[in-house]
Amino acid sequence: MRAIDIIARKRDGMALNAEEIDFFVQGFTRGTIPDYQAAAWLMTIFLRNMDRQETIDLTMAMARSGKQLDLKDISSFVVDKHSTGGVGDKTTLVVAPLVAAAGVSVGKMSGRGLGFTGGTLDKLESIPGFRSDLTEDEFRGQLASIGIVVSGQSSDLAPADGRLYSLRDATATVGSLPLIASSIMSKKIAAGANGIVLDVKVGQGAFMRTEEDALALASLMVAIGKRVGRKVRAVISDMNQPLGNAIGNALELKEALDTLHGRGPDDFRRHCLTVAGQMLQLAGRALDGAEAETLLADLIRSRQALQKFREWIAAQHGELEPVDDPELLPAARFQREIPAPRTGFVAGLNAREVGLTSMLLGGGRAKKGDAIDHGVGIVLQAKVGDHVIEGNPLLIIHANDEAKLAGARQRLLSAYEWSDEEVSPLLLLHQMVS
Amino acid sequence: MRAIDIIARKRDGMALNAEEIDFFVQGFTRGTIPDYQAAAWLMTIFLRNMDRQETIDLTMAMARSGKQLDLKDISSFVVDKHSTGGVGDKTTLVVAPLVAAAGVSVGKMSGRGLGFTGGTLDKLESIPGFRSDLTEDEFRGQLASIGIVVSGQSSDLAPADGRLYSLRDATATVGSLPLIASSIMSKKIAAGANGIVLDVKVGQGAFMRTEEDALALASLMVAIGKRVGRKVRAVISDMNQPLGNAIGNALELKEALDTLHGRGPDDFRRHCLTVAGQMLQLAGRALDGAEAETLLADLIRSRQALQKFREWIAAQHGELEPVDDPELLPAARFQREIPAPRTGFVAGLNAREVGLTSMLLGGGRAKKGDAIDHGVGIVLQAKVGDHVIEGNPLLIIHANDEAKLAGARQRLLSAYEWSDEEVSPLLLLHQMVS
Repeated sequence: MRAIDIIARKRDGMALNAEEIDFFVQGFTRGTIPDYQAAAWLMTIFLRNMDRQETIDLTMAMARSGKQLDLKDISSFVVDKHSTGGVGDKTTLVVAPLVAAAGVSVGKMSGRGLGFTGGTLDKLESIPGFRSDLTEDEFRGQLASIGIVVSGQSSDLAPADGRLYSLRDATATVGSLPLIASSIMSKKIAAGANGIVLDVKVGQGAFMRTEEDALALASLMVAIGKRVGRKVRAVISDMNQPLGNAIGNALELKEALDTLHGRGPDDFRRHCLTVAGQMLQLAGRALDGAEAETLLADLIRSRQALQKFREWIAAQHGELEPVDDPELLPAARFQREIPAPRTGFVAGLNAREVGLTSMLLGGGRAKKGDAIDHGVGIVLQAKVGDHVIEGNPLLIIHANDEAKLAGARQRLLSAYEWSDEEVSPLLLLHQMVS
Repeated sequence: MRAIDIIARKRDGMALNAEEIDFFVQGFTRGTIPDYQAAAWLMTIFLRNMDRQETIDLTMAMARSGKQLDLKDISSFVVDKHSTGGVGDKTTLVVAPLVAAAGVSVGKMSGRGLGFTGGTLDKLESIPGFRSDLTEDEFRGQLASIGIVVSGQSSDLAPADGRLYSLRDATATVGSLPLIASSIMSKKIAAGANGIVLDVKVGQGAFMRTEEDALALASLMVAIGKRVGRKVRAVISDMNQPLGNAIGNALELKEALDTLHGRGPDDFRRHCLTVAGQMLQLAGRALDGAEAETLLADLIRSRQALQKFREWIAAQHGELEPVDDPELLPAARFQREIPAPRTGFVAGLNAREVGLTSMLLGGGRAKKGDAIDHGVGIVLQAKVGDHVIEGNPLLIIHANDEAKLAGARQRLLSAYEWSDEEVSPLLLLHQMVS
């Protein structure tokens, strides 16, 4: 078998078989197939697409490219969740302890932010001391002892994905459905979870801009998971405006803590209950959405979810003082309230622009490896559908630099659209796929 | 400007402008754009194509990637020819001295054989001592003094082409019309000739299998040449069966010498007169085909062309004894006549198979850099349209190894197709494009 023949077959629109796909993925991972051949192959996949069977074969080849965790000896059912990425998406910080407090094991590997999107690890690392670089033994041990662990992606799992992703990033082949689906699912499958809830974001602050694309991705990932014996459901949720009110690492952590205290923005709280509810149902801990919601509401009210959050942070060496008193979390020097420039209804609030602004304030990364500032960000005071009076607070910018603050103000004001007519709030949950 | 944006634009089917193409080609040549980005870009060009203007821009960017020869101080009009490659194609060995003998300067850079196709330099190097690695000064000096020079491709000219070609070869992006046309024309343009005759081969022993593809390539190359002020004509000639009777380096050189002596196979002689006639017309040395043919026939009859061949070989340090007595050229140990397996008309003779057989005998290269055996090859005694009696000679195999000889016999017998009905000889010249 030769790499060039596999490239040529896909170039000519043929479907590749499992052996060909495996040969290419393992060869690339081991370095026997050079990156320029892989780059050409990725472009053929981008332009010629892959059918469902090819995508499943690609996913499994990537999962097989490294170690695959087996967590059966720790728990009969481990759940995981994955978000395709958005702005203000701190969902894991709430649902992981919620679900774990319900007695369902949550073992998750998470990522860092890039561009306009944030990353769960960056948010957790607002807590001094928090460690995400766990060894496999630490990951297993913590999952066994307290039923919750969130670590960085292990480079031993699906190493093909990391290498292919870097190449896609440099060759304009990121936005391909089979490549996106196999990238996500190969890591999830290798990480050993029995049940996976996929949070597929749709809208102008998401990678999937249209509901059609989001549905196609969700359906494909659910199909892949089922074909390899995992329980998978997908939630297609809105990312036209940011989720919740806080954008920025410590600010989002604080909002997650608020939510675990039973406060927090309504949209974010409802989203967490939806995702966590699906996780409980996958694990058989709740029969339907209503039962799940009752249970979850009780775990918040009783502070059991908050207590699980504290256990989790402590287990990963995070300090508990800032958890108990979020005023101790990293904070920005300037906190400037921006008044509404006019009276009216908020008709739009471009999530991508808000995410980029947070990045430019220092809260995100323009490129991998950039340092980030945990204290900066934005707290929205008005979202789509809200009525605001000119001069009343529209948002607060948290910044460490006056010039950046001024730039952020300009950018954020432009991210708002206004209407004199009443505007409906955005639909939060678009669809469920199972 | 960023390479990834240029890849994305072509990926999405947009036409690139001259600045974008130049940025990519020069960046890749200088190493600021890595090969994996170039590989992805080449695949977008393969699958999305380039229009005529883009192809012209690509050609000129490649020509500009290195030195460009200016031969004005040597001759007011230098002609060159280029064949897209075939089996038994020793045309340069005859037309270069013919045209030079007519007083028209011939300055040409040539290549080596690969796979089923032969290369002019390999054939010339059957002559002991012949040197093709000329410096620019040697190239210019010889062109000035005797009006004929054929050297290897200088790595200073169109270096982008060499680098891009290696990448295309490894990434299944060779067979793309704009990439083929720009590769050929960038080198020809950089090499400084004023007039270029393109010999575009069509058929089962050529890269262009159909007349439609050959015509498209020929038209594109002629258009490119004209747009940059060169006189260009293309001859679309048949390569379903080998050209002439000899295949193999020294055997082809001998056949070229026969032709310069006024002997040689009829099809090859006629092809040489066509190509050389076009070169004379481009240079203004003949007004039409009839005048050219009269002049060329006279240069053969008077041995002036042969004398020019001798001058040329001597100038490039080749020994003249084997030119004057071709029995002194490298010869194979075994020369086995293969009798016809049946009585009938030859209906087909697969040029690609004959070329591959010559390669397997040792006369060609499976991959770049392989050593070759100048003495081996095949001499055909019957071609398409000929009537043969069972047991009479069909061909002669020249080999240095009994096992290879047996394999070649098998392969060559399978390359023939037979008919009981009379079969027309193949059309030699399909079309002229100017």
